[in-house]
Amino acid sequence: MVQLQGDERLDYLLAENLRIIQSPSVFSFSLDAVLLSRFASIPIQKGSIVDLCSGNGVVPLLMSSRTKASIIGVEIQERLSDMAKRSITYNNLEEQLSIIHGDLKDMPKQLGKEKYDSVTCNPPFFPTVSEEKISDNIHLAIARHEIYCTLEDVIQVSSQLLKQGGKATFVHRPGRLIDIITLMRKYKLEPKRMRLVHPKEGKEANTLLIEGIKDGKKDLKVLPPLIVYTEDNEYTPEIRSILYGE
Amino acid sequence: MVQLQGDERLDYLLAENLRIIQSPSVFSFSLDAVLLSRFASIPIQKGSIVDLCSGNGVVPLLMSSRTKASIIGVEIQERLSDMAKRSITYNNLEEQLSIIHGDLKDMPKQLGKEKYDSVTCNPPFFPTVSEEKISDNIHLAIARHEIYCTLEDVIQVSSQLLKQGGKATFVHRPGRLIDIITLMRKYKLEPKRMRLVHPKEGKEANTLLIEGIKDGKKDLKVLPPLIVYTEDNEYTPEIRSILYGE
Repeated sequence: MVQLQGDERLDYLLAENLRIIQSPSVFSFSLDAVLLSRFASIPIQKGSIVDLCSGNGVVPLLMSSRTKASIIGVEIQERLSDMAKRSITYNNLEEQLSIIHGDLKDMPKQLGKEKYDSVTCNPPFFPTVSEEKISDNIHLAIARHEIYCTLEDVIQVSSQLLKQGGKATFVHRPGRLIDIITLMRKYKLEPKRMRLVHPKEGKEANTLLIEGIKDGKKDLKVLPPLIVYTEDNEYTPEIRSILYGE
Repeated sequence: MVQLQGDERLDYLLAENLRIIQSPSVFSFSLDAVLLSRFASIPIQKGSIVDLCSGNGVVPLLMSSRTKASIIGVEIQERLSDMAKRSITYNNLEEQLSIIHGDLKDMPKQLGKEKYDSVTCNPPFFPTVSEEKISDNIHLAIARHEIYCTLEDVIQVSSQLLKQGGKATFVHRPGRLIDIITLMRKYKLEPKRMRLVHPKEGKEANTLLIEGIKDGKKDLKVLPPLIVYTEDNEYTPEIRSILYGE
């Protein structure tokens, strides 16, 4: 049983036999989170993974079906971290998954430096703007804007948490690619694998998946593009396979 | 009439009504050069363009069909710069195109700083390796390896030649993307437009086209991927259109 609050729903989590607590007014997971959880290189049999900016825990929940490693989600918003904790309990995943309600900038001290195999993050995409411009909904604003953490915070903390050879994976907007790459190099996360997501064939990319290896050698692979919709506005076979395992 | 030397040939230059002197043992142009000459943003009615590492002049020759601007090609190998000059004469393009036999590092002093609208370059792709490993053919080795100029030289010189708001366009290998981007930012060429070229659908990218604007604002667009071959190993319609104007 699970206690749902306000307009929360207990949604099915794609092809997995999992469910997740969401709320249209507070937080619902996006395709970005799904793509990140599938793109990330994570240890399979054992190890430890940290997911930063976890929101309602969608990335840890999705990754749990691919690995036996422990996964710690970090979320600064109490309301969202509480949704994530209840989803973990509902799915009986308390042994593998845990959620920390806290600021990611405190995590290297709190969780320990250079101890983790993988770090994932679907960070806020938009630089902070004036208060007027931020959505009235503070939960969505925090998830979308760099209010509590900047891209540099995310990348610096990821690097501090990772072992040498550990992997950091991020999803972001292509407009920030140059910033991401510059910061990844600054913090010794050498970019190794990149995939660009285009909404349709012939359209500019609108999403970027990128993975770096701590202290890795210089050599970037650019994977085949991922196209989301067909000409008829249906999901492409690859997206259907990612989403539903078809 | 044109004087051909050794194994030189007077080849047709794609759909253009142009011909170009090439030699299998010294230098033949590649698809990279064609893609660069089409991808580059260049002034149409007037202005001035510099093409660095010009080889046998393929990029200036191809661009001449798209613009009335003057184009200066720079090539350090005398043999290749001579082929380029003879091709320009053969095509009666001496008024628009010129070739300088010289070291690109001398060009800001020789040609003037901050005077040009566009700079293009298809630089040597491979870092210098030990002498044993360099091809016996010194012409090809210089064109392929960073013997006379490094990627940093190319990007620094491009920036020095360009006016504020001028555009630098490069073709390179995706494995060097992080280096290119880092150097472009270092020399104030903000990356604005990028296109990845994949040999086939579902394959990793093997070529990178990137354009930066001198002192430009941060915002990168990632264009749709360019696929070279169909499943049946024929050129795709887009490549046929680029190559032959079909």
